Amino acid sequence: MVKLVECVPNFSEGRRKEVIEEIAGTIRGIPGIYFLDAEYDKNHNRSVMTFVGPPEPVMQAAFAAIAKASELIDLTKHEGEHPRIGATDVMPFIPIEDVTMKECVTMAKEVGKAVAEYLHIPVYLYEEAATREDRKNLANIRKGESEGLRADVETNPDRKPDFGEAKLHPTAGATVIGARYPLVAYNVYLDTKDIDIAKKIAKKVRFKDGGLPHVKALGMEIQERGLVQVSMNLTNYEVTPVHVAFEAVKAEAEKFGVRVHSSEIVGLVPMKAIAETAASYLKMESFTVGQVLEKKMAEVMKKGDGKK
Amino acid sequence: MVKLVECVPNFSEGRRKEVIEEIAGTIRGIPGIYFLDAEYDKNHNRSVMTFVGPPEPVMQAAFAAIAKASELIDLTKHEGEHPRIGATDVMPFIPIEDVTMKECVTMAKEVGKAVAEYLHIPVYLYEEAATREDRKNLANIRKGESEGLRADVETNPDRKPDFGEAKLHPTAGATVIGARYPLVAYNVYLDTKDIDIAKKIAKKVRFKDGGLPHVKALGMEIQERGLVQVSMNLTNYEVTPVHVAFEAVKAEAEKFGVRVHSSEIVGLVPMKAIAETAASYLKMESFTVGQVLEKKMAEVMKKGDGKK
Repeated sequence: MVKLVECVPNFSEGRRKEVIEEIAGTIRGIPGIYFLDAEYDKNHNRSVMTFVGPPEPVMQAAFAAIAKASELIDLTKHEGEHPRIGATDVMPFIPIEDVTMKECVTMAKEVGKAVAEYLHIPVYLYEEAATREDRKNLANIRKGESEGLRADVETNPDRKPDFGEAKLHPTAGATVIGARYPLVAYNVYLDTKDIDIAKKIAKKVRFKDGGLPHVKALGMEIQERGLVQVSMNLTNYEVTPVHVAFEAVKAEAEKFGVRVHSSEIVGLVPMKAIAETAASYLKMESFTVGQVLEKKMAEVMKKGDGKK
Repeated sequence: MVKLVECVPNFSEGRRKEVIEEIAGTIRGIPGIYFLDAEYDKNHNRSVMTFVGPPEPVMQAAFAAIAKASELIDLTKHEGEHPRIGATDVMPFIPIEDVTMKECVTMAKEVGKAVAEYLHIPVYLYEEAATREDRKNLANIRKGESEGLRADVETNPDRKPDFGEAKLHPTAGATVIGARYPLVAYNVYLDTKDIDIAKKIAKKVRFKDGGLPHVKALGMEIQERGLVQVSMNLTNYEVTPVHVAFEAVKAEAEKFGVRVHSSEIVGLVPMKAIAETAASYLKMESFTVGQVLEKKMAEVMKKGDGKK
């Protein structure tokens, strides 16, 4: 087994393609890194990149990307719809294979320390790496965005960063680094136009209001399809798997006499989440992702082209 | 997308480990090949190897393995429980990714032709590559095993090979080459000790007796667990997916008032089969295996270490 960590940094640049390309190129240039995806949004003026690799190369790539973004992005000239406090705004480390959450927390702290020390960008730790309960939630750290934080951080001890001085970097702001579980963006469509039903079901299934652990949910209207949707983020699919979220929404919908129309996973999903869903419905007690042909292939590839 | 073909040759050697190692080493030595697995059985005196790669390297590895096996295995000195007619007994090519069945049939014919021409081993084409209806079924080709076939082939025009002369190779016998869909070995356990129920359900669901297409099934007693099992081979999971087989057995069991205890996939399974099962139960209309993180990683790896 090869240790694998995913990193999904968000950069405050979604318009200048050459800047996005250069940051992506920096990440790709680190040996051992598999660069999976780069998406950017002009309105948000923000890009999200996804890469995977063993812990050491991932830390190197993470540091190099933050350094490159701080060279190329000037937050004092940045505007966009999405809240942000840094050139590299958020950077989570996510355990994928043979790696514990604890190891990802350690990675976040090591990278955070180096970023503060060598790049002079203050770092806040969030989610599983948070050192204070209120910093688990990204929104709390990002309050006031870079403009608000810049003034606040020097006077308010409550906003002191976890690493570095209580003073934002002149152009790169601050960066939030942390560790979290893989997130599955999962939507269930309901055979009704009644948005109230979707909202009530969302409230019922989300953790905040006493529902399923690690589930965030909102009711949404999908006008072009004439349907409503319970839009969910499953923030720990090992605790609340996809099929459990599906069945919960389905059961709640039935109380309103409403049928589930369909569902969708948005973006990438770890194979284990899909395998667990199949295994649950088929009552497979002993199925493992190691039995998936492509998984076996990937393992052989990682060992060096099947030559071992 | 990279074209990927799986090859699962069966060799008539399950006892001399050094011979098995040498054949496996020959396959591993071909650039572009991912060697996934080698299993052998002493009683059957037979080994099964699994490797994957693009069509050209797979054909090279297939030919090289048959050549190596013909050097190392003397069928006139071979005994074992499993029926066989050749040193390399059977060799199917299986479409995995971005490859059609037609391409795999062409591969089987090219390799078959070369084996007959350069190694002087007669070749029979089977399953999807068969040139005659009765040769789709491996058992028909293998009738009498090498001993019976050796006598028969020279006098009975019906047993003339598809490639090569009507005369077995003195030590390597004959080889059956073909193309087939990935096979999923899938068992459903029933909460009863009544083997008759398992046998009746197997009969009901298998294609031979009017059941589901591409499903072979047998009722089996699993004494150590105090259960019975419907043991299935799904020979084309795109036509009859795993969950359809599961639901069919479940529905039949319910007619006997028997519950499904659990199910299991034996050995490897293509990711698509698992993803389709999950997608079906979750009513996901647009899910593709391209959304699976590990699949995306494998694609990036194949393109050359994510450097593209």
